[in-house]
Amino acid sequence: MQPTLTVFYIASFFTVLLAFCFAAYLCAWVKSQKASNQKIEKVSALIKTGANTFMRKEYTVLAKFALVAAIIIFLLLPAPVWSGNVIDNIIMVIAYVAGTIFSAIAGKLGIFAATIANRKAAEAAKEGIKPAFLVGFRGGAVMGLAVVGSSLLGVVAVMLFTNDTTALLGFSFGASSLALFAKAGGGIFTKTADVSADLVGKVELGIPEDDPRNPAVIADNVGDNVGDVAGMGADLFDSNVASMTAALVMAVSLDQATDGAINTAMVLCYAALGLLSSVIGIATAKIGKNGNPTRALNSSTYVTTAVFVILTAAATAIFEGFRWEIWGASAVGLVVGVIIGIATDYFTDDTKPIVKNVARASRSGPAFTILSGVSYGFISCLPAMIGIAISALVAYNLCDGLGEGYAMFGISMAAVGMLSIVGMIISNDAYGPIVDNARGLAEMGELGDDVLRITDELDSAGNTVKAVTKGFAIGAAGLTVISMLGAYMSEVNAAAVELGKELLTGFDIMNPTVFFGMLVGAAIPAVFSAMLMLGVDRNAQRMVAEIHRQFKEIKGLKEGKEGVEPEYEKCIDIATKGALKELIPAGLVAIFATLVVGFIGGVSAVGGFLVGNIVSGLLLSLFMSNAGGLWDNSKKYVEAGNEGGKGSEAHKSAVVGDTVGDPFKDTAGPSINTQITVVSLVASLMSTLFLTVSIF
Amino acid sequence: MQPTLTVFYIASFFTVLLAFCFAAYLCAWVKSQKASNQKIEKVSALIKTGANTFMRKEYTVLAKFALVAAIIIFLLLPAPVWSGNVIDNIIMVIAYVAGTIFSAIAGKLGIFAATIANRKAAEAAKEGIKPAFLVGFRGGAVMGLAVVGSSLLGVVAVMLFTNDTTALLGFSFGASSLALFAKAGGGIFTKTADVSADLVGKVELGIPEDDPRNPAVIADNVGDNVGDVAGMGADLFDSNVASMTAALVMAVSLDQATDGAINTAMVLCYAALGLLSSVIGIATAKIGKNGNPTRALNSSTYVTTAVFVILTAAATAIFEGFRWEIWGASAVGLVVGVIIGIATDYFTDDTKPIVKNVARASRSGPAFTILSGVSYGFISCLPAMIGIAISALVAYNLCDGLGEGYAMFGISMAAVGMLSIVGMIISNDAYGPIVDNARGLAEMGELGDDVLRITDELDSAGNTVKAVTKGFAIGAAGLTVISMLGAYMSEVNAAAVELGKELLTGFDIMNPTVFFGMLVGAAIPAVFSAMLMLGVDRNAQRMVAEIHRQFKEIKGLKEGKEGVEPEYEKCIDIATKGALKELIPAGLVAIFATLVVGFIGGVSAVGGFLVGNIVSGLLLSLFMSNAGGLWDNSKKYVEAGNEGGKGSEAHKSAVVGDTVGDPFKDTAGPSINTQITVVSLVASLMSTLFLTVSIF
Repeated sequence: MQPTLTVFYIASFFTVLLAFCFAAYLCAWVKSQKASNQKIEKVSALIKTGANTFMRKEYTVLAKFALVAAIIIFLLLPAPVWSGNVIDNIIMVIAYVAGTIFSAIAGKLGIFAATIANRKAAEAAKEGIKPAFLVGFRGGAVMGLAVVGSSLLGVVAVMLFTNDTTALLGFSFGASSLALFAKAGGGIFTKTADVSADLVGKVELGIPEDDPRNPAVIADNVGDNVGDVAGMGADLFDSNVASMTAALVMAVSLDQATDGAINTAMVLCYAALGLLSSVIGIATAKIGKNGNPTRALNSSTYVTTAVFVILTAAATAIFEGFRWEIWGASAVGLVVGVIIGIATDYFTDDTKPIVKNVARASRSGPAFTILSGVSYGFISCLPAMIGIAISALVAYNLCDGLGEGYAMFGISMAAVGMLSIVGMIISNDAYGPIVDNARGLAEMGELGDDVLRITDELDSAGNTVKAVTKGFAIGAAGLTVISMLGAYMSEVNAAAVELGKELLTGFDIMNPTVFFGMLVGAAIPAVFSAMLMLGVDRNAQRMVAEIHRQFKEIKGLKEGKEGVEPEYEKCIDIATKGALKELIPAGLVAIFATLVVGFIGGVSAVGGFLVGNIVSGLLLSLFMSNAGGLWDNSKKYVEAGNEGGKGSEAHKSAVVGDTVGDPFKDTAGPSINTQITVVSLVASLMSTLFLTVSIF
Repeated sequence: MQPTLTVFYIASFFTVLLAFCFAAYLCAWVKSQKASNQKIEKVSALIKTGANTFMRKEYTVLAKFALVAAIIIFLLLPAPVWSGNVIDNIIMVIAYVAGTIFSAIAGKLGIFAATIANRKAAEAAKEGIKPAFLVGFRGGAVMGLAVVGSSLLGVVAVMLFTNDTTALLGFSFGASSLALFAKAGGGIFTKTADVSADLVGKVELGIPEDDPRNPAVIADNVGDNVGDVAGMGADLFDSNVASMTAALVMAVSLDQATDGAINTAMVLCYAALGLLSSVIGIATAKIGKNGNPTRALNSSTYVTTAVFVILTAAATAIFEGFRWEIWGASAVGLVVGVIIGIATDYFTDDTKPIVKNVARASRSGPAFTILSGVSYGFISCLPAMIGIAISALVAYNLCDGLGEGYAMFGISMAAVGMLSIVGMIISNDAYGPIVDNARGLAEMGELGDDVLRITDELDSAGNTVKAVTKGFAIGAAGLTVISMLGAYMSEVNAAAVELGKELLTGFDIMNPTVFFGMLVGAAIPAVFSAMLMLGVDRNAQRMVAEIHRQFKEIKGLKEGKEGVEPEYEKCIDIATKGALKELIPAGLVAIFATLVVGFIGGVSAVGGFLVGNIVSGLLLSLFMSNAGGLWDNSKKYVEAGNEGGKGSEAHKSAVVGDTVGDPFKDTAGPSINTQITVVSLVASLMSTLFLTVSIF
């Protein structure tokens, strides 16, 4: 069978439609769950308002940023407006803005569902673990489906309207801009609130987590939503768009050479089947009455994986011209993604030896918690790095025989494969903050210890699964950026042809211009993440001062007098303003460094810059995410009564580890992904300029 | 003027002779200083015996390792013994063994002088800061001159006897093998003792540092010598030999093409002038009666730098055929080295803002000490990475016009330039542990508070300068390994010509085999340093148990009863055995990974592996060395009475930072250099095998 490309476009649209309908159904289902507790309603309204406030401010700042970016894009891209076609530049601007808007809408929908699901899940926990799990999971699934549906919709729409992959890069850049704000800004927000709430509440005053007297408690819950739900969603929206973009850039160029459309069709088909697999995986997720939520989450991931592999195999068998080698590449990517997830789990699951080792080391004091965590964090990078390396190598060699350019296309399809189940991944990931919030609401709504036990169990499953999904997300981003390197070279060569310059054949490490770029590029993720962490630190100091002020000035607050309430909004406000203020310099450093390297060393230096950035970025993000997860779970392991339990020396040390790990795993580590994508896209978009203006 | 190559060989020999004579004079001068305090004599004899015990054991294990390596070398290198010339293989073995022996002798001489200088410096401090400084500095200078003299001697001897640069690689590999043991093994030893002594002494029992009741106190002092004096010496011996080797490999191949010897002559000339400059710098080092030791150390470094630049300029003007472009490359290397040192100083000097920021953050608890230290540590990598990148770029572009192959030669000469003042650097560096020991001896010899104040000031200067020299050493190692990459390619192509295989033109990042190697290579320094740190941790636990045992079983020890002494040797024994036991797996992982990558992906994958290793290795070693220095000095800053001073919350947090920083800066960080060199040499030596046997 050999349908035309149009058929695949239409099929993609219908898949997106199906996903949206299903998401709407799930959202309605969650909304229809009963909720009656007044306290919970009140607090959850505060959370919702806080989240909306943050997102409104964030989007306002983003809008200004996007405006500046849009003007620059209009002036310079794809070619300077005074030298090229004005229409092309307008299309670029529209694509860019569409990228930010699509991602923003998906984030909004996700937050909307999540802030409903959290209170419904809290109340459902009164009935048992089964209904509570389903509410949490389905609330998260709305985010998953919204993100993947809208990313596929956006990509397909841009392709259909413009038939121009450079516009697709613009769309992808828009998505990255938003992800930078949502992930890094949200990451700073959530950790500011978390650290400050813990520092004053738990450490200074000794009041429990989620105690409503703590002025930062609502900000903390808001942070879960804006950092983990919206931030992670934007991050994966970005990765997903980037992987499809990179694959389409190469597919279109391969198709142009043969006057066909088969590779483009294949990318669309696989992307749509990935979304379909996620829909099936989500629909079949279930848990027994006393079932294990971790197992339930993992098993639906495996279902999605299997469905994707089978469906794509069927498509490859049915459609004439689809190559088995490319199917193999995507399957390898997916399988390696799962393996990376499992390896991450080994280093961060508290039933495995590593977490226990760190907990044991904590007995000797906080320095040993840190040293052992850093060490295991370093070691934990190895399996993922090898996994990414091998999947790239296998994908390349599988597809190399198909003709020139197919090898890099194979790598991009491995990334598409790895990201195919991203809908499922986001669902699992958004589940975490929903049930975490539910736990907080259950505490504040005084639903009793039985309910807390259930929400604790749901929360713990969220933490475990989070490590796996995070490893997966980093792995997928790694493969994506490798294929973006290919996209960068395609862009450079397209520009070189137009300018009549020499074509690039690659980036030779022995070329010192490349090497120069590489060393600078390698330092950027370190600087970027350091700036974010210092930002959290500064911001937390401001918030701690505010909490102290409230406890001092609001009479009866500390004693928990009836009717006395802290000024929650002030804390939310500090976290919001500070997050955006601290984020922008870090983002600018990364973008600015790309430009400086490009104008000094030209396109080769930028190639090296991207590689250095990818290599050190992958290493640092894996290290920070895994070490953070490890410390978090070590603390939980000690709190569960091991190594002396709560209040012991080991516990104090483990708390230090967790506090260090929080910005590692929730602010800096996962933001590096976005930084890499932003830098890759800036490089691709500026390639014409780097070709024409550079010192060396 | 255009003398023959022989003249340069002879001149090199005479420079070495001059350096050795000067070292002998300094050693005799130090020895002639008076010393009378019985207690100090006794303790310093213990330290000397301990250091000798460790080195004997270390050399025994090393001898076994070297035997295995020698057999493998005999069988396989430069070509399998059954296929090639047996004489060549025997030469390789001899060169390899000579590399280990030359380095070992230099280390022995240094330790010999250092263990005399420490007690003489303690007693000289009674007379004032000026004599004490001179004793400390000149004791360190013996090490500096011995290391640089014997490295130049070894390289010249190998070249003269074999006229074969592959044999030089063998010599360099020997030096690296020893450095791996001395630096990493010594690093584990010193931190095991330091951490254990502090943990039980200062934290548990509240007795002062260097208290003679503490069973680990001698081991701690021994550690300063074997880790910092011998380890750092072996590390820089290794870097120095590697930089000369890389430059000579390329010089000889350039000279062969033109049937000349001018480039080889230039390398020898510059190396000899570097040694001569260090002799002059050391000879002119002085301090006023109430002078500032930090300034004295730094100013002799600047003298050496200026002398080297002037002397090499003169040589370039005098000798026909010496190119100014190459002089420029070496000068750029040296200047950038100094700049890197100054940048490092900014991040680690307690009169600069960064150290103060970390001290202030410590008020909020240890988690903030760690977070801010990690963040600034990350940022501190940027100047050095840019510096290395720019010096490579400038050197390349300066020399690129001279003809094919000159560009990479220019980079190697930048490394030679950067390392030219290594004699001075080692002198400054060995000064640190000598005065640190002197402080301990003054305490144990009860020389009174005035003397302690002087030794404290000397010690503090040592710490400040150490950060600078460490940054310098890492920078130099960075440039060296870049030029070793060039040497690796030369070796591969030499082998390819013999085997009739295709020549390599470079390592293209877009080639997934290269990329595969790069990702794996990037993970290795992380794993290597993690294994060393975990080794320190495990070893410290053993020693803490031993200290506890002694305090429990030896009656009167805790109370400080007259005549009761701890069993110092037991602690030394534990540190020694543990260090060697923990080191070997880490070293093998690095070597084994190189082999696996080579046999999977062949020479291109190994090229990528080396690059990944260099990039992430530089980043991590800069990060760990600088963060460690930063924490150390933050603690000292707090102890000087800031942020609440000793005993405050900030102090407790700063101590945690220092404890984390110790293995960072003294074990893992600087050992990564050696790991990179070892891996580069293994790659060069095995290139023929990788060419013939590989999967992809």
